[in-house]
Amino acid sequence: MSDETSRIEAFSDGVFAIAITLLILDVHVPSSNQGSLGHALAKQWPTYVAYLISFAFIGIMWVNHHRLFNHIRRSDNGLMFLNLLLLLGVSVVPFPTALLAAHYYSGGRTMAAAVFNGTYVVIAVFFNVLWHHAVRGDLLDSATRESAEAISKQYAVGPISYLVCFGLTWISVPASLAANIALAIFFAMPPRAGGTKRERKMHIAAI
Amino acid sequence: MSDETSRIEAFSDGVFAIAITLLILDVHVPSSNQGSLGHALAKQWPTYVAYLISFAFIGIMWVNHHRLFNHIRRSDNGLMFLNLLLLLGVSVVPFPTALLAAHYYSGGRTMAAAVFNGTYVVIAVFFNVLWHHAVRGDLLDSATRESAEAISKQYAVGPISYLVCFGLTWISVPASLAANIALAIFFAMPPRAGGTKRERKMHIAAI
Amino acid sequence: MSDETSRIEAFSDGVFAIAITLLILDVHVPSSNQGSLGHALAKQWPTYVAYLISFAFIGIMWVNHHRLFNHIRRSDNGLMFLNLLLLLGVSVVPFPTALLAAHYYSGGRTMAAAVFNGTYVVIAVFFNVLWHHAVRGDLLDSATRESAEAISKQYAVGPISYLVCFGLTWISVPASLAANIALAIFFAMPPRAGGTKRERKMHIAAI
Amino acid sequence: MSDETSRIEAFSDGVFAIAITLLILDVHVPSSNQGSLGHALAKQWPTYVAYLISFAFIGIMWVNHHRLFNHIRRSDNGLMFLNLLLLLGVSVVPFPTALLAAHYYSGGRTMAAAVFNGTYVVIAVFFNVLWHHAVRGDLLDSATRESAEAISKQYAVGPISYLVCFGLTWISVPASLAANIALAIFFAMPPRAGGTKRERKMHIAAI
Repeated sequence: MSDETSRIEAFSDGVFAIAITLLILDVHVPSSNQGSLGHALAKQWPTYVAYLISFAFIGIMWVNHHRLFNHIRRSDNGLMFLNLLLLLGVSVVPFPTALLAAHYYSGGRTMAAAVFNGTYVVIAVFFNVLWHHAVRGDLLDSATRESAEAISKQYAVGPISYLVCFGLTWISVPASLAANIALAIFFAMPPRAGGTKRERKMHIAAI
Repeated sequence: MSDETSRIEAFSDGVFAIAITLLILDVHVPSSNQGSLGHALAKQWPTYVAYLISFAFIGIMWVNHHRLFNHIRRSDNGLMFLNLLLLLGVSVVPFPTALLAAHYYSGGRTMAAAVFNGTYVVIAVFFNVLWHHAVRGDLLDSATRESAEAISKQYAVGPISYLVCFGLTWISVPASLAANIALAIFFAMPPRAGGTKRERKMHIAAI
Repeated sequence: MSDETSRIEAFSDGVFAIAITLLILDVHVPSSNQGSLGHALAKQWPTYVAYLISFAFIGIMWVNHHRLFNHIRRSDNGLMFLNLLLLLGVSVVPFPTALLAAHYYSGGRTMAAAVFNGTYVVIAVFFNVLWHHAVRGDLLDSATRESAEAISKQYAVGPISYLVCFGLTWISVPASLAANIALAIFFAMPPRAGGTKRERKMHIAAI
Repeated sequence: MSDETSRIEAFSDGVFAIAITLLILDVHVPSSNQGSLGHALAKQWPTYVAYLISFAFIGIMWVNHHRLFNHIRRSDNGLMFLNLLLLLGVSVVPFPTALLAAHYYSGGRTMAAAVFNGTYVVIAVFFNVLWHHAVRGDLLDSATRESAEAISKQYAVGPISYLVCFGLTWISVPASLAANIALAIFFAMPPRAGGTKRERKMHIAAI
């Protein structure tokens, strides 16, 4: 049934590609009567930061989604709908991104950053639910089944990392954004050259 | 002519993926001078409900569209244009969704909910027209031709379900939304474990 | 080099699918202080008409684009860039569609309808240029080369039909819209059952 | 590992197709109370120029992206993320395009044009980084490896050309736009008929 999963992947790729590209629509052009354009552009730096974090997270999720489906050899009804749930999370991302950008300077800054980071917590949980369904439903290829437990432990890192960022928003929004950026760089960084193939696989699995 | 149908499927997948992802553009960020952001976010719950219903319905339609084309072994001019008609319906969905979100608190609430549910009635009818064209035009594979009549009965459930929701809007808009949510959950739920393969297939066909 | 053309087709399909789905973003929700919602929705009928015409035309163009590339067996630099020119035309469609919708009741109605129909004249010309490049550059498969002259005559119908609609805008905008709708229905209608396979092919080629 | 790169290509194609089609959303319809519609449409010519330049540049980048991946025979972690960086640049394009269109008549014209051209400098640099990673990481097919040095020299033309346009913005914005248009035409023009196959390949590589 790799035909079945290849169609799910193609549809998912479409949603990932669209969501990641739509993000730019919420980076607004400053109006012409706000004084110096350079100043106005600089002032909306939270918009760029939110944009970059969301772009990085969706990009990393796409990489991980593909790796996950590389190991899935057949599909079932549950996989189909849990994947739609994951895509729901990915499609939603432009909203909390725009929310954070619009309210960084307003009284709603903490709330906006909490919604922003909360979205990623939920997506990471959906990712884990999808993975556990694939393990329990025996949808994986035989090679992956052996290392499933180890991979499960690694996947659990995602929700915890995002939960830390979520917690940080209540203490300091700039600190939570810094943690987001650090997380994105950590996920994107190449693993140590000396690592085994399995270690490298695990590194990237952390979402 | 499975090449012909595979191209129709790829184009259709694109339209489904874009329509489902564009929905988020109509979930607007509350402006910063509306008091507490948390309160403002909570107040626009009808927006989230309309978004979730439309996301679920487009997702379910995509699943069904794929199942339908799994059984179609050749294409003709009519299939091409009836499929475009179905995609027209799917592409339109962001408009009634935004309409319902914007007018839930206005005097136009009933009208907005009627347009919302009316759209799904029309799409479900288009779906049935497409199916009947495939049956009459002998476009199905031989395995499906035998069970075509049974499947036709199942597909008829879609327009009737949506028609019930449409009727409900004139009595109570919240009730019609509750019926929409119930419908989405019913369509997405896995069939009973004891069911035969054919029963499971039929279950999901109900749109 | 069918690999080369298959990649052009995939990219083109993406642009067609996105352009056709983006059209709905210009169907705006009436604001809640415009009196009866039903009345406000009915009043913006030119928006729906412009939307439907553009959806039909992009859909028909997609069908024809695929038919054209079915006959092209190899690609060159010119084909690549003439195809990008055609996609430029397709991508632009949401703008004249929104223009016509916004200015149907303003003093700019004739100008808006002229831009609307002028866009389709230009796209149809681009389509013919692409076709002639494929003929002259010997990019077609051998079967098509023989009937190339006959197909060329048929393709010429597109620009002329749109030019008639364009001319009509200066006499009567409603008449030009009626001509647009008639054109879309004519292009979409199945050819007479008695026609030969070649006649049927020609019918649809008229854009 | 051509399966790995084909998935990267499909996702990249999606992002290119969406970014190029989204550009039209920033070509705004003039409001109906701005006097003559024809005049209002003519007055926003900088919007069309910015749109056409960005459409051409994204189209050319897509062509080059495909040519690049034609020569890449295997993928690694770095390629994956450097490609995401390139796609980040491509996705961003609608923002500087809208910025230039909105501020051509404002005091921020120079700043807007600098951001516009600066974006293309950055994208061209990302393109070169991706290429050098492929060369250094031994990801190319053997045929390309031999001519890698010559191709590297050609790819360096891109950032330099865009840097010249960027420099021009500080002297004259109209001159920089003219240089942009000249660049787009040069990149799109077919190479001289007498050129060797390798020369033709190099011509297009200049981004």
